[in-house]
Amino acid sequence: MSAPLVVAVDAMGGDRAPGEVVAGALRAAEEHGIEIVLVGRPEALGEAGGLPVVPAGEVIEMGDDPGKAVRRKKDSSLVRAAEAVRDGKAAAMFSAGNTGAAMASALLRMGRIKGVARPAVATPLPVPGTTPTVLLDAGANAECQPAWLVQFAQMGGAYARARYALDEPRVGLLSIGEESGKGNSLVKEAHALLAEARGVRFVGNVEGRDLLTDEVDVVVTDGFSGNVALKSMEGALRCLSEAVQGALTTEAWATVAPVLEALDTETYGGAMLLGVEGDCVIGHGASSAKAVANGIVVAAELARCDLVSALRSAIAG
Amino acid sequence: MSAPLVVAVDAMGGDRAPGEVVAGALRAAEEHGIEIVLVGRPEALGEAGGLPVVPAGEVIEMGDDPGKAVRRKKDSSLVRAAEAVRDGKAAAMFSAGNTGAAMASALLRMGRIKGVARPAVATPLPVPGTTPTVLLDAGANAECQPAWLVQFAQMGGAYARARYALDEPRVGLLSIGEESGKGNSLVKEAHALLAEARGVRFVGNVEGRDLLTDEVDVVVTDGFSGNVALKSMEGALRCLSEAVQGALTTEAWATVAPVLEALDTETYGGAMLLGVEGDCVIGHGASSAKAVANGIVVAAELARCDLVSALRSAIAG
Repeated sequence: MSAPLVVAVDAMGGDRAPGEVVAGALRAAEEHGIEIVLVGRPEALGEAGGLPVVPAGEVIEMGDDPGKAVRRKKDSSLVRAAEAVRDGKAAAMFSAGNTGAAMASALLRMGRIKGVARPAVATPLPVPGTTPTVLLDAGANAECQPAWLVQFAQMGGAYARARYALDEPRVGLLSIGEESGKGNSLVKEAHALLAEARGVRFVGNVEGRDLLTDEVDVVVTDGFSGNVALKSMEGALRCLSEAVQGALTTEAWATVAPVLEALDTETYGGAMLLGVEGDCVIGHGASSAKAVANGIVVAAELARCDLVSALRSAIAG
Repeated sequence: MSAPLVVAVDAMGGDRAPGEVVAGALRAAEEHGIEIVLVGRPEALGEAGGLPVVPAGEVIEMGDDPGKAVRRKKDSSLVRAAEAVRDGKAAAMFSAGNTGAAMASALLRMGRIKGVARPAVATPLPVPGTTPTVLLDAGANAECQPAWLVQFAQMGGAYARARYALDEPRVGLLSIGEESGKGNSLVKEAHALLAEARGVRFVGNVEGRDLLTDEVDVVVTDGFSGNVALKSMEGALRCLSEAVQGALTTEAWATVAPVLEALDTETYGGAMLLGVEGDCVIGHGASSAKAVANGIVVAAELARCDLVSALRSAIAG
């Protein structure tokens, strides 16, 4: 018996909530046939386009301390969304709200998959012409132990198999040189563990410039370096898009804008928290209705491919 | 009495040495009036376009272990180039060879500036419409102590003042959130030290997406994260350039290609080793004649603005 394929959407989370979130949820429902429950303050949501609403009286703000907020605001939309998944009322959750609080809600309410030392945030990076590169940890754990990176490799591999139908995803370790001796002590120790790890097709160290290529399918790193890589790429893409736009005619820009948009991770459906007993997709705080709809579609896909079972197997071995 | 403004060029270093290196040196001499000595094997260099040659019988290969190579190959072009600076025969050196060996040669032959705990690699990142953002450490020290980052801030600030004529360069600390509590333990400790540091206009944490903006002039980080940021941006720019080229007509691409090239750090004159008693510019291994010429121009500029004196003052306080 699996839960009905319903996505619980934190209607109050994000810089443009509830307006853009509700609009995105309606879009996901209408265009993709996804069943949705909105979670939030009924008086703020109004008719909500006819979507069902799970009432939640509190809101975790973007600036709130994640741990404290989740402990104190027990009736917040984020916490209630995670509870909907825990209780089987939804198969997955989506939030464009406070990232740390979304992770904490999912972790505390859904619980950790047995054997997982630390859940990690996975971000699929769009690569032209092939499947995305899955980068993890993209920011959940600023400091990591070498053994956690092995679990990130197992979880990232399970994700790439489940979602992109890759038989044996190639896993690389983010470093600052391809040779095994390059990197900091975390990388050197993790390299040795990954070379011996069960169920991981380890291809060795990779560098930041390999992330958007077809050289590797999954890249593991600590949450600090992963977040630095992610945001550096975002910044480079944004800077370059502006420079390109300034140099082109309106017509030429119109042909290239969709290409650039496809490479923008912010519009790509958000980040996934891997290692908890449920699917949790976290969108960018500035998410538009379109980005929200994309994120909800991803959340539904994760539930449909039964990612959590795949993660359990990958960790249990 | 300052050394004559001569740049010692490692003629054997780089994937395309000596051909492209010699061509680049000739270009720098002819187009920019820079006095040059080539360092390398006379039989490999031949006429060398009439440039003077300092003979060096050995070559440090790209794959050589940096420390060992510098100790064993005492007559290598890299070591001899660093000695030319040490001995006052040149004011600065340039190499497109083995990066680690170039750093080790400069450090061991020129020596450290008094008080500097660790030299760092500084990379100026081109920002459209304003001065570059100086990122350091971009790869010299994979693991750092918090106090080293304060010195990186002082040296990066001195560099931005000397080379870009900024009165009070804004210094940011690379992290994964703007709040002071965000980041790993290195960042948290460095944040506290930077807030109190003498001669540093500290503007707090910055993120990867701020690197190519006008929000900050100098960004300090450990050499692992700095190198990850740098290479992630390079990879994103390359990926995006290819995607843009594919989407545009030949004419439209011709208008945008120079804009993208200006953003490519590989063509931007290389990285500088800051904290040693001499100017050392390190180019990309794949450097073309044009990139070599750019790197030599930068080396000459550093000598002309007496960067080493500025760094000594910044560290001595």
